[in-house]
Amino acid sequence: MEIDTDRLQADIEANAKHGEIEVADGRARTVLTGTDANRAARETLVGRMEAAGLDVTVDAVGNIAGTWTPESADPDAPPVAAGSHVDSVPEGGIFDGPLGVYAALEAVRAMQDAGVEPARPLVVVSFTEEEGQRFADGLLGSSVAVGDRSVEDALAIEDDDGIALVDALERIGFRGEGRLDASEWEAWYELHIEQDTRLERENVPVGVVTTITGITHCEVEILGEANHAGATPMDERTDALAAASEVVLDVEAAATDVVETESETAVGTVGSLSVSPNATNVVPGTVELGVDIRDVEYQSMQTIVEATRSSLAIVEADRGVETSFARPFDLEPTPMSESLREAAHRAGAAADVQTMDLHSGAAHDTMHVADVTEAALLFAPSQEGISHNPREWTDWEDCANATRVLAGAMAESAGVDADEA
Amino acid sequence: MEIDTDRLQADIEANAKHGEIEVADGRARTVLTGTDANRAARETLVGRMEAAGLDVTVDAVGNIAGTWTPESADPDAPPVAAGSHVDSVPEGGIFDGPLGVYAALEAVRAMQDAGVEPARPLVVVSFTEEEGQRFADGLLGSSVAVGDRSVEDALAIEDDDGIALVDALERIGFRGEGRLDASEWEAWYELHIEQDTRLERENVPVGVVTTITGITHCEVEILGEANHAGATPMDERTDALAAASEVVLDVEAAATDVVETESETAVGTVGSLSVSPNATNVVPGTVELGVDIRDVEYQSMQTIVEATRSSLAIVEADRGVETSFARPFDLEPTPMSESLREAAHRAGAAADVQTMDLHSGAAHDTMHVADVTEAALLFAPSQEGISHNPREWTDWEDCANATRVLAGAMAESAGVDADEA
Repeated sequence: MEIDTDRLQADIEANAKHGEIEVADGRARTVLTGTDANRAARETLVGRMEAAGLDVTVDAVGNIAGTWTPESADPDAPPVAAGSHVDSVPEGGIFDGPLGVYAALEAVRAMQDAGVEPARPLVVVSFTEEEGQRFADGLLGSSVAVGDRSVEDALAIEDDDGIALVDALERIGFRGEGRLDASEWEAWYELHIEQDTRLERENVPVGVVTTITGITHCEVEILGEANHAGATPMDERTDALAAASEVVLDVEAAATDVVETESETAVGTVGSLSVSPNATNVVPGTVELGVDIRDVEYQSMQTIVEATRSSLAIVEADRGVETSFARPFDLEPTPMSESLREAAHRAGAAADVQTMDLHSGAAHDTMHVADVTEAALLFAPSQEGISHNPREWTDWEDCANATRVLAGAMAESAGVDADEA
Repeated sequence: MEIDTDRLQADIEANAKHGEIEVADGRARTVLTGTDANRAARETLVGRMEAAGLDVTVDAVGNIAGTWTPESADPDAPPVAAGSHVDSVPEGGIFDGPLGVYAALEAVRAMQDAGVEPARPLVVVSFTEEEGQRFADGLLGSSVAVGDRSVEDALAIEDDDGIALVDALERIGFRGEGRLDASEWEAWYELHIEQDTRLERENVPVGVVTTITGITHCEVEILGEANHAGATPMDERTDALAAASEVVLDVEAAATDVVETESETAVGTVGSLSVSPNATNVVPGTVELGVDIRDVEYQSMQTIVEATRSSLAIVEADRGVETSFARPFDLEPTPMSESLREAAHRAGAAADVQTMDLHSGAAHDTMHVADVTEAALLFAPSQEGISHNPREWTDWEDCANATRVLAGAMAESAGVDADEA
């Protein structure tokens, strides 16, 4: 089963033209859900799917599925699905999402070219609004496909300008019908760029994800007292930013400590911090912090959350600030399917492509799909770990190697004999 | 010489109507330079000055001066001037600025009523754009009056919408001619609210400022590396916010240390901090800090500046961030006139109003005026030290007591016999 690297590259390059932006360094595209660039990217994908003989459907929230039902397959057998997304962050790179969609399509074409005989249909999928840049917080299409969110709720979500998803999709001609149902799939594979440097450092072309980390987001508010920076003596201040600085360092220290003692994959980040009134000559009165905590072990995440709360208690006691703490988002770690991981490693061995186990610290649609069926996530190397950035890059040969592993694993799950593949 | 408390209160209340805003707690006004509220406040002031027989002039940058030349005075003798400003911060209180302007006017009226015979003219002044909320950074009118900034440069300053000061003043009919020249004054007094709690705590109604602290503003940028909060291990981060948090705490610690060892009036504040990209799920890539350092001793300010720079060197070495440091604003401490301070204390004693020495941590137009003539700054108590806030408050009796001291000191400087006053 031979992958056509040029064909894969041509697809990704064609997709990269949509929403393309000139930048000094790298290649940038902005493809937000429901924009003209998103319409164009979707139309290109549908065209490529149809050219490969796939039966294309678009569901009510714009999820695109292209199904190949070979003569060898039982059309009623649960299919093997694979894909990712074509939307991007603003000025995102050209691989994050499209690689997984077009690699899945290339895998199907490779099976067609090789004349293998799958026992199950194969489905190439592009989920709507994975990045969460315009509607909701991310992983939107897959949340509907697994039944976490109703079609109606999803369509009613509005962007910052009050435009509902339903209207944005109708405008670009991609509000379809029905609901793509991931629970009907026998198996699901997603190939994505790694967004980290482990493959690069180990010089291994393909990663097989063991677990997608859980994610907790905490919202912290620290209330001090805004006051004149010149007229307020040091010992009469209740400086919300000084208190917040202790908390930032405590979160960092707690995560580092957990890495050393409990679980080396744990991370804790204060990614956002906003000061009010935020004037150089005013003692800060209020600070809001956004904390991101992830690990493959939920208990380790809990340890960092507890340390964050302890830090707040300490600044309340030591500095007289008031604090509030909320945990609006909390997802437990998602282990990947053991059998599909093994299939991926076998596919790598068969194609003479080295594979390695690693975890994913980033969220992916596969987190949702894993709730309803067997699911696996593969990684291709990201140069310097850069993503969500025009400098995001994966060599074409790495794209091809990862697609070889994806194709082999999909073929095995679809009942193609190992000898045949 | 009797102060008319009701008349003073009526003036400040009338001024407070301009730009008045309904708030749940306290009394708020927004009077930015060149707005309709500013026009109304200026017109009310000119009306009150003319009603008291003052000769009103408006200079090219909108500084208002009302001169009383009594028959007893040599019209060519250098006058004694006093005043403050009528502009406010957004949702500011009703005393910050207007108290000093209307107290100076009330002092003149009290001299007129008492029939005292000053040997010098008296000038009541309202400087343009003290707060620096719309044009430049503050103390604008006084910077022109002392020759620090040319009329042309001042008039060309644009607000955030690109409107020049000259056009804003012309629109409200307050672009006059010539330049108010503070160097021609024999003496200058400004009465202002304290914006701190020392008078309140000591239960003393009037403060006589010894020194206005110097002010340094530092602009710091910390460059780390923005990265995925989930996919970037703790030991591979260059987190600009964690580095910045160390700097915030180091500035606080350095100022506290200077208070304990060098100069108890020193303060150091990180008042502003902005994170980029400032998303909960992204390791912070860049942080900008605004640092405010003040003291009556310039050497102590230098100590805190040096500690800030050392802190930056440490985070560069320990965390691999890059930092930049600028010091765009640096004013040395301004001692007040010894002779005028003594005049103020004598006036307090004569009026049976207790006075005390203190420093000012806040900047005032008097900082500029002190560069060109004898200058003094008096404080009235601020309840709970609150200012730039609708809850700013000074009791009317405290306003009156401070005005008694101001009037006595102005009279002495204008050559009124102590027995007569």
